[in-house]
Amino acid sequence: MLPQRLVARLSLLAPTIRQLMETPPEPHTKATARGHIKALRTFKNVGFMDLSDGSGHGTLSVIVSDPGAVFAAHQYKVGQSVEVTGRWAPSRGRQPFELACDTQDPAHGIAVLGDVAPDYPIQKKRHTLAFLRSAPTLRHRTALLSSVLRMRARAEAAVAAFFLLHDVVKVAPPLITASDCEGAGEQFQVRPLGESTADGGGGGGFFGTAAYLTVSTQLHLEVLALSLNRVWTLTPCFRAETSNTPRHLSEFWMLEAELCYVTSVGQLTAFVEQMVRHVVAHLAAGGEWAAGAQHDLLAARHSRDDVARIRAAWAQVLLPAPWPSVTYSEALETLNALKYKGRLQGRLAWGAPLLTEDEKWLAGCHYQLPVFVTDYPKAQKPFYMRASGDAARPTVACFDLLVPELGELVGGSLREHDLATLEAEMASRGMLRDAMRWYLSTRENGSVPHGGFGMGFERLLAYLAAVDNIRDISAFPRAPNVCAC
Amino acid sequence: MLPQRLVARLSLLAPTIRQLMETPPEPHTKATARGHIKALRTFKNVGFMDLSDGSGHGTLSVIVSDPGAVFAAHQYKVGQSVEVTGRWAPSRGRQPFELACDTQDPAHGIAVLGDVAPDYPIQKKRHTLAFLRSAPTLRHRTALLSSVLRMRARAEAAVAAFFLLHDVVKVAPPLITASDCEGAGEQFQVRPLGESTADGGGGGGFFGTAAYLTVSTQLHLEVLALSLNRVWTLTPCFRAETSNTPRHLSEFWMLEAELCYVTSVGQLTAFVEQMVRHVVAHLAAGGEWAAGAQHDLLAARHSRDDVARIRAAWAQVLLPAPWPSVTYSEALETLNALKYKGRLQGRLAWGAPLLTEDEKWLAGCHYQLPVFVTDYPKAQKPFYMRASGDAARPTVACFDLLVPELGELVGGSLREHDLATLEAEMASRGMLRDAMRWYLSTRENGSVPHGGFGMGFERLLAYLAAVDNIRDISAFPRAPNVCAC
Repeated sequence: MLPQRLVARLSLLAPTIRQLMETPPEPHTKATARGHIKALRTFKNVGFMDLSDGSGHGTLSVIVSDPGAVFAAHQYKVGQSVEVTGRWAPSRGRQPFELACDTQDPAHGIAVLGDVAPDYPIQKKRHTLAFLRSAPTLRHRTALLSSVLRMRARAEAAVAAFFLLHDVVKVAPPLITASDCEGAGEQFQVRPLGESTADGGGGGGFFGTAAYLTVSTQLHLEVLALSLNRVWTLTPCFRAETSNTPRHLSEFWMLEAELCYVTSVGQLTAFVEQMVRHVVAHLAAGGEWAAGAQHDLLAARHSRDDVARIRAAWAQVLLPAPWPSVTYSEALETLNALKYKGRLQGRLAWGAPLLTEDEKWLAGCHYQLPVFVTDYPKAQKPFYMRASGDAARPTVACFDLLVPELGELVGGSLREHDLATLEAEMASRGMLRDAMRWYLSTRENGSVPHGGFGMGFERLLAYLAAVDNIRDISAFPRAPNVCAC
Repeated sequence: MLPQRLVARLSLLAPTIRQLMETPPEPHTKATARGHIKALRTFKNVGFMDLSDGSGHGTLSVIVSDPGAVFAAHQYKVGQSVEVTGRWAPSRGRQPFELACDTQDPAHGIAVLGDVAPDYPIQKKRHTLAFLRSAPTLRHRTALLSSVLRMRARAEAAVAAFFLLHDVVKVAPPLITASDCEGAGEQFQVRPLGESTADGGGGGGFFGTAAYLTVSTQLHLEVLALSLNRVWTLTPCFRAETSNTPRHLSEFWMLEAELCYVTSVGQLTAFVEQMVRHVVAHLAAGGEWAAGAQHDLLAARHSRDDVARIRAAWAQVLLPAPWPSVTYSEALETLNALKYKGRLQGRLAWGAPLLTEDEKWLAGCHYQLPVFVTDYPKAQKPFYMRASGDAARPTVACFDLLVPELGELVGGSLREHDLATLEAEMASRGMLRDAMRWYLSTRENGSVPHGGFGMGFERLLAYLAAVDNIRDISAFPRAPNVCAC
């Protein structure tokens, strides 16, 4: 592999500020940097300008020798984009280098590439996340939100490396589908512009069948796993839920995997624990300008509370202690004995769903670790999960991974691979066999035990960034009445 | 990083056949392998079974010592999934190891995990791609089509590594959008199931506005590039084109990138040339069981013609000669002078679009290399491209990358970053400024010169796999009347 500096030159692209910091020019040679003005200070004979291009959270300091008050006269503004040429110099400031620009040196200069509107919202001060939501196209110019996007990219790379190591093949299942995986989710329907709901409602239309946006790619992943042994994907999924919560998006990215020859839930939970640990350890490694996503996040957060929450979340994941795994029935007993002790209100009867607050209590208060809850009541879960438990308390071989502060992060199960058992379950739920013939074809032809899981990718990032509203994780969130740009 | 063998054990997953071959057990120890039966031969006292689990193109040979005719009596069938325990042994066959199974050894055995239907279509013979399309859930059990999916995963990893090297951040732009990027494409509209076309046609509805599936994420990528400097994505895009061709899908994956501080088309074409070379070189490296995607492809193709086409395509990309770059006007002159020489029919007037056959002729016959064609007539291109050329022949600063056999693989341009110029162009095309205010906000606030490109990911894979119909590249293709599973 070529050294990065050489590659950057070969690419004919001007270096980013991150590249200037990581593979710096020779000190005291001429250098050019480009970015947006984040801060300005003007004094007699000297000026200061902080530049950011979003390639890292840090800014490049431009120190301007200004004996003729040329810099001062220009009245540069925060938010303008500029190209600055000066002398690359070691710095005693926060960053190892700075750009020294002399207004009397004809080889030096500051060119404004783009001006800024008078109401430019991203000024040098702390903005709340709620305020930034009002500037959806400019909010990622803040260190706060750009650090989240940079972490997302690093997290995706870490996930890909983990799956490669485990011989899991990344695949691209379809997003437009004729079926409804969960048998429940509120779905979006897809039609060519101009085709009315009168056309192709139950059949016909563009695709020859009613077509929806997928709520989960699992069924297609199962089909591909039965050919490739282990597959994963990271794709958008869509839910037309009208509930407007800080935990839900109408369009979100889901990491899903299906693994053949898996015969116990314990294999799945061990795999998921390794995966999450791998990703977080990878993001925690690295320094300021290098790949250190945690450093990047922390440097952009000013409130002590935010910093503490981030540190706590990462520490919980990375503690060497193995994550506890309890059954739903055991979790219920713990909740009733400790959380709802002495209270009638709130006590849970077997079969009741765990509320988000119960999940947060288990992980955040009781175990103070990520925790797996397995073997939920069958009635709460979709048709494709393999049975566990007994006739009195029918459960399925499934798990949820609950994490402090957030609740459910991952959900998975063994999939029923026996054709007759699966068909009986579908019949008992009143599902039409014909619509699922394609899915059942895998059970008719060399079926194998298998299992899989799904993780809302924005939820992982929200947990690691200690961001309460998932709309601050998604670059352009989609939700009821939210699709403006 | 832990050795792969250790990682595989820690994960509690049974090893794949690829893992068994790459990090083999000690010879002559007991080993278990799982997969589908690809081929069977039964003789007196000995039987042979070839197993594949799709983790690589090769099969694991199981040699069964069968003095009691136990194996023969079982009547195993091609397509069944089995778990075989035997002795791991060096082999003199095509693969370095085989599994020796003795029907009289109680520690050895063959268990059928899943039976197979009598009409199982994937038998041990050459299937045409057209035939395999009739078995959409089983066709990836062939070496031919599983090699395409494995290459896809490797290609995506190579692309990601390239962008990481160049400090380009992977982002996740939205797929549901209120705007129409190209101002032309046939779009799909998105509505919650149950919401009729009478609701929310021009406004209102679930999202508070009419919502579509994106045809290109470019406009959102531009917004993010103006915050992060360089961004890329690989996402599904959707086009409701009714033309049923082997080159088009209704749902396809598009690789798109936007790069700030780019000021010439030559920077973009140099970057794209490096990107495609990087990906192909990465895929060409590696051996049979390791990451060698080209070897994997070639081993699965039986026709000499297919093998020759694959070798030619890869060789063309990897030749050290730089790829030619000509303007549209120069390409037109070449076509008229050489392809259409002495013919009236077909001669191209300035302004005429290049047909796919013209593109294939330029790359495949004339240059016999991938070739960039730049500076197309403005009238052929969307509003956001920066102008080039003169008033007599107005062109835009854009390029297409044409490759032999396929035609257009990549298209890109400089984006107009000056607010007034962009607004004038939009007005001249009758576009509504209000609907694009969000996009224009980047031109009002610290705009910078930038450019980008898009590549149909399935097209790259079709080119490299020498597959003529893009529906054989997509795991579950979507096209008019094609959405059955």
